[in-house]
Amino acid sequence: MLSRYRFLSSYVPAKARAMVFEKYGNPKDVLRAHTYELPPLTPTTLHMRFLASPINPADINQIEGVYPARPTFTKELGGLPDGEHKELAVGGNEGVAEIIAVGDQVKDLKVGDWVIMGRAGFGTWRTHAAATPNDVIHFNSKEIGLIQAATLSVNPCTAYRMLKDFVTLKKGDFVIQCGANSSVGQSVIQIAKAWDVNTINIVRNRPDIENLKTYLKSLGATHIITDQELRSYKTKELIKEWTGGNVVKLGLNCVGGEVATEMAKYLGQSGVYVTYGAMSRQPFVVPASHLIFKDIKFLGFWMSRWNKTHSREEKEEMLNEVITLMKFKKETPGYAAFEEVLWGNPSESNESLRDKFLDALDKSGAGFHGKKQILKMQY
Amino acid sequence: MLSRYRFLSSYVPAKARAMVFEKYGNPKDVLRAHTYELPPLTPTTLHMRFLASPINPADINQIEGVYPARPTFTKELGGLPDGEHKELAVGGNEGVAEIIAVGDQVKDLKVGDWVIMGRAGFGTWRTHAAATPNDVIHFNSKEIGLIQAATLSVNPCTAYRMLKDFVTLKKGDFVIQCGANSSVGQSVIQIAKAWDVNTINIVRNRPDIENLKTYLKSLGATHIITDQELRSYKTKELIKEWTGGNVVKLGLNCVGGEVATEMAKYLGQSGVYVTYGAMSRQPFVVPASHLIFKDIKFLGFWMSRWNKTHSREEKEEMLNEVITLMKFKKETPGYAAFEEVLWGNPSESNESLRDKFLDALDKSGAGFHGKKQILKMQY
Repeated sequence: MLSRYRFLSSYVPAKARAMVFEKYGNPKDVLRAHTYELPPLTPTTLHMRFLASPINPADINQIEGVYPARPTFTKELGGLPDGEHKELAVGGNEGVAEIIAVGDQVKDLKVGDWVIMGRAGFGTWRTHAAATPNDVIHFNSKEIGLIQAATLSVNPCTAYRMLKDFVTLKKGDFVIQCGANSSVGQSVIQIAKAWDVNTINIVRNRPDIENLKTYLKSLGATHIITDQELRSYKTKELIKEWTGGNVVKLGLNCVGGEVATEMAKYLGQSGVYVTYGAMSRQPFVVPASHLIFKDIKFLGFWMSRWNKTHSREEKEEMLNEVITLMKFKKETPGYAAFEEVLWGNPSESNESLRDKFLDALDKSGAGFHGKKQILKMQY
Repeated sequence: MLSRYRFLSSYVPAKARAMVFEKYGNPKDVLRAHTYELPPLTPTTLHMRFLASPINPADINQIEGVYPARPTFTKELGGLPDGEHKELAVGGNEGVAEIIAVGDQVKDLKVGDWVIMGRAGFGTWRTHAAATPNDVIHFNSKEIGLIQAATLSVNPCTAYRMLKDFVTLKKGDFVIQCGANSSVGQSVIQIAKAWDVNTINIVRNRPDIENLKTYLKSLGATHIITDQELRSYKTKELIKEWTGGNVVKLGLNCVGGEVATEMAKYLGQSGVYVTYGAMSRQPFVVPASHLIFKDIKFLGFWMSRWNKTHSREEKEEMLNEVITLMKFKKETPGYAAFEEVLWGNPSESNESLRDKFLDALDKSGAGFHGKKQILKMQY
């Protein structure tokens, strides 16, 4: 690995490698590996090299053209040799990069700083990029490992905002969530634990359920219940016993379908039910009585929208709080199951880089059932 | 009809007649007509005589014990001759009464004033009642007829609050609603029209649909579409043409089921979807994309909750605004189809009053498919 500090005087931009597409479609058809030169550094821009970038389910939907957050198509990368258009977009929305050069007028950012992207659609499946300071968010990298940093901006931040923005949670309050072993769900458990907030965690039943329960407990989960147990007639009594009659203030849903409908029953008067995903791809049913008599509010959360409507200062503050709350450890793999994919080696051909990437894409199973694949960049 | 002004010096309380129940159950089994004496007037109480009281669907559910707003069981009415308990509740939650006597220390209310109930559960199916000033809300009765006053506190107020409390509506904005020919729906049309807000009104298809359209247009409806037309593939284009590309800010749902699910598609980015009823008795389905990407908020409204959490001054202000906005006419039947039932005649037996009441209950069809029945009190 290169030193984290370089000097502008000796700086010569490297050739960049990226996974790009010039039109929407099936990723296997439209994705290409591409080599391009960074534009010269200007007084107000910076150059960075990516360290690690995950493949997330939303990235796939974005390439297919069915995700509301659009990628940035630009002429700056040059066209593909066999391309129909001059404009290309780089895939990927999340990742961590190290600043390798800054223009004279760039303040508050210096060579060696670790940054993540300030918005969706920047394109993170690449080795190098030119950017403006507004494209990136600097954070305290001493507390956090590479993989944690690469996967910090979407899932842990989603968990943090949902716990913070919809209801005021005090020590001893209760939150219920389904998909509790998802990346966001695990972050919810950790952040709630740091605030002494109790979590009731719904997971799908499975042969090794006791292992999963032990793992989630080790993160700080208060109670765990399977989707099968949730449907039992005894659940109402059980949850009442757990909460001691306190109302459950917040429900978090990334699953949809029957379990999401069932979960809504356990929210207390005037509770807030936040949907941020639909892993089951099933819509859920809302009984009018929940809305009218129990005053339950069914709302949605999307990190991309929050990022669009909030300042860089607010994002920096959030990142540093999340890092502190989740007590990341640099040396351990952290909270989510993942696999590293070494990618971007300058000696490999574009064909080879593309094949490697598509293999990783297959393994990720679009992220829902596979293991999260994280590109770890090589130089 | 008696003079609207009496004098305390000559005041002797009349015998009161009421439709009462001592336990929850099927209204036909548990409702009795009952005769009782009003307690003596005290310095801080008032006596009133009811002028008109409707039979609403929620009143039935309340007697069945399945409605969240509970009636007031009290010993003050004396028990039934064949009763098991000493405590009785009077049915009905809505109605208009005239003050016939006030205690010395009662301020701001005088003999002859018209009042409606300040909360659910007071019991309005009776000729006379004793109350405290906090039980009632005084309003400007010059602008409004008897039947309109009797049905003012639930449906028109529900319409008003839903149009006012969830989004800020400006001239030219768009609201969509299903069940548009319900009592609340018709009030929505009238109030929106007074504010120059456009309404898109969904009604069930029927043989005389053109008559209904003409009637709703006469109230001020901007656009009308049937549930069948709503399912057509052309609806998206049609509504876009109507709105000129403006977003629909507010959706109002009292139907549930398929039409409620369908209607949600036409709300714009960050719109608010308010459910206040479920006439079809079907729950509705919420696609996660509406919540996550379109940021649509699914909320509920219940007038009883609003009444519980707001002051008498706020209620008086609301009533006077609603009366002004809806331009009631004293001499016309107004906005809702109804039938008057003469009730409470002192010369009739309790058996006869009970039979008359149960006949009216049958005709109301619990309010969903029948004609609203309104008790008009006789003295």
